[in-house]
Amino acid sequence: MSRIASITTADVRFPTSLELDGSDAVNVDPDYSAAYVTIRTDEGEEGHGFVFTCGRGNDVITHAIDTYAQLLIGRNVEALIFDLGAASKRLVHDSQLRWLGPEKGVSQMACGALINALWDIRARREDKPLWLLLSTMAPEEIVDVVDFTHIRNALDPAQALDILQRASAGKDDRIAALQADGYPAYTTSPGWLGYSDEKLVRLSRDAAADGFSMIKLKVGGSVEDDLRRLALAREAVGDLPIAIDANQRWEVAEAIEWVNRLAPFEPYWIEEPTSTDDILGHADIRKGVSPTRVATGEAVANRIVFKQLLQAQAIDVLQLDSTRVAGVNENIATMLLAARYGVPVCPHAGGVGLCELVQHFSFFDYAAVSGSQEGRMIEYVDHLHEHFAEPVRIVGGRYAAPTLPGIGAEMLTASRDHWVFPDGAGWREVNGRAATTATEVEVAS
Amino acid sequence: MSRIASITTADVRFPTSLELDGSDAVNVDPDYSAAYVTIRTDEGEEGHGFVFTCGRGNDVITHAIDTYAQLLIGRNVEALIFDLGAASKRLVHDSQLRWLGPEKGVSQMACGALINALWDIRARREDKPLWLLLSTMAPEEIVDVVDFTHIRNALDPAQALDILQRASAGKDDRIAALQADGYPAYTTSPGWLGYSDEKLVRLSRDAAADGFSMIKLKVGGSVEDDLRRLALAREAVGDLPIAIDANQRWEVAEAIEWVNRLAPFEPYWIEEPTSTDDILGHADIRKGVSPTRVATGEAVANRIVFKQLLQAQAIDVLQLDSTRVAGVNENIATMLLAARYGVPVCPHAGGVGLCELVQHFSFFDYAAVSGSQEGRMIEYVDHLHEHFAEPVRIVGGRYAAPTLPGIGAEMLTASRDHWVFPDGAGWREVNGRAATTATEVEVAS
Repeated sequence: MSRIASITTADVRFPTSLELDGSDAVNVDPDYSAAYVTIRTDEGEEGHGFVFTCGRGNDVITHAIDTYAQLLIGRNVEALIFDLGAASKRLVHDSQLRWLGPEKGVSQMACGALINALWDIRARREDKPLWLLLSTMAPEEIVDVVDFTHIRNALDPAQALDILQRASAGKDDRIAALQADGYPAYTTSPGWLGYSDEKLVRLSRDAAADGFSMIKLKVGGSVEDDLRRLALAREAVGDLPIAIDANQRWEVAEAIEWVNRLAPFEPYWIEEPTSTDDILGHADIRKGVSPTRVATGEAVANRIVFKQLLQAQAIDVLQLDSTRVAGVNENIATMLLAARYGVPVCPHAGGVGLCELVQHFSFFDYAAVSGSQEGRMIEYVDHLHEHFAEPVRIVGGRYAAPTLPGIGAEMLTASRDHWVFPDGAGWREVNGRAATTATEVEVAS
Repeated sequence: MSRIASITTADVRFPTSLELDGSDAVNVDPDYSAAYVTIRTDEGEEGHGFVFTCGRGNDVITHAIDTYAQLLIGRNVEALIFDLGAASKRLVHDSQLRWLGPEKGVSQMACGALINALWDIRARREDKPLWLLLSTMAPEEIVDVVDFTHIRNALDPAQALDILQRASAGKDDRIAALQADGYPAYTTSPGWLGYSDEKLVRLSRDAAADGFSMIKLKVGGSVEDDLRRLALAREAVGDLPIAIDANQRWEVAEAIEWVNRLAPFEPYWIEEPTSTDDILGHADIRKGVSPTRVATGEAVANRIVFKQLLQAQAIDVLQLDSTRVAGVNENIATMLLAARYGVPVCPHAGGVGLCELVQHFSFFDYAAVSGSQEGRMIEYVDHLHEHFAEPVRIVGGRYAAPTLPGIGAEMLTASRDHWVFPDGAGWREVNGRAATTATEVEVAS
């Protein structure tokens, strides 16, 4: 029997705003950051997890992780990692901490980082990458980690078990196929709002040549710019699908009007047309922009909101995010909900480390949940992968199966040390240029 | 011209779990707490604000307030307090911090505390309690502080202005009536789950004798207990309305079945039957338990969720909370939405300081928004008022109009110092007994 010996956090930020990588209509100057956590056992095992943020406020998440960590220090490791359903509930439903959400925002993301780090210990101990661990767990074990609280009117344990049991047929073949051929990817790299037309066209052509299944453009700054950029991209990639992403920029009526103006370029989906809290708004938008698909999820707080997006027939594509919700468990709940409603999961990635994490969910989805790759792709952005113990590998526009035991969250120690905020060597170097992370924007004169 | 000179926070907690005051089916052991903030100007003015929490995690909110405070330090005070719409947007929509919510949980509550403290400076400078300041502002000024982002499909500025202009007729008379007679209250003091039957009956009788408009009982632990307690309360108070509150304990079908079993005792409303994220679930429950009303709001993250609860006809009573959302501005938005949909606002109170804060909204609602007290009451709980500069005054079961300039948030310095966590004298005294705030609950053996 071993114990949780220590839990340490690090505020790691990258000065991506200097290059306008990752710029969109709402996130105009992100410094991609990781509120990083390492759980250590008294036997020397380590589990890694993190929450992705856009810079300022990354410290709020590390502080929240430190607070939740007090619920785990000294606990029996085996009791935690072999009953991850109970471990998740202990954190998410803590009788006092629950008030901070409930189940949303900073507190939910902090729980997620810790839950993921516990899964990392579990997967390392079983010597498997997360996707393979999940894909080889018995359906009953998977059901057992899901928190069905407040989703039972859409998915109960028996229905979840049925989905998983039906997907058991052919699972070994699909695992072998994933190991041989990977999983389809699309790329957002060409489409940031801060990029010039020339860069957009060049990167779009590159993406098509590289074999990606789709490219995605950020929209929502000005409709004239969007029309021009979409025309350029369409010319560059021919028939390849092009998705568009407004990052919650619009009101409901505005979204419908704007998307319909862009419709001649046949966008594959419109992503985050409005607030992701607005379930009914998404349902109205979906009706109003058909046949353009509606996608959302990277900012959806929990399984209860996903449940309603599905119940209301508000989305065509569900984009789960690896660090927004309460960890692996809640993402499994969401995948099962999506399977029950027949909606494809195309995870959100990019940022820092999100590709490394989220690929595991799509691999598991194909192996053991939906059993399908139809209409399914993982987002890919070519930033910051070099900082991870096992960077994602894209081969012919597809994610190759990760092989390192664990959940994929481990960032190299040298990278963490170099970019720790504000005192790492990297930040000392850019100091003076990093005005967007400092707080020098005037509220008013 | 003055500048924001300093912003300081304090983690203030009260060991209420020792007495099971405030115990319900979900919040079993709250230590009522305030993540307290004081803004000081270089001319010696002060603004006070806080976020209510249930104990653990109060430090996460103070840390978040400290982080958001960096956006205000050194700013021109007048530019902030005389353009509170812009000040609110600067905090809520900060391009990097926004990711932490967006607009929910810890980050939204932290913004709310700072926005409220700015309103406190404004109200003190104008020498008025908040409710009177708001009630005497021109309709155009009120509209100008509202953030209509993502609610324009339910309420646009012209519609908001129309609501306020229509309520201008008779406003002076209603202000005079509020100053003379106050505003109706109901009380939750009798109904905590941790109280004995004897205490429940005694406090219910007291509440009726004291002139309260309603009492409220916590439910959701066991249906047998609920039936017994409701019968006792009904016998004790006769025809007086009795509301019931499940604190999000139930699944949708469970809520309908449970409430219908309690229906013979004619509960006035069922509060928080399920997750407040579950808009569609509330709509189903409302249909399923009619004629029992459905109420929610204390855990609703923002105006966008309130908008949908109203659009979906999911609630009969809207319970705004003074420290859950992004401050005075967002509560005004919510009151205007409620007025547009004809749904009465009965604010959530209790905890620590929530009565002191939230009364201002109901007074303003009567004076200048809905113009009605029909079906409207402010929650009252008799805890911890002695710690405030102007404790609420209940006269004949009604809130008397607060008169002290400001928003009502100022807690006595002596109380703050005594109960600062974990090193205040109060906590040193209870040390050893306060096991629920420490973190000694085992996850598993």
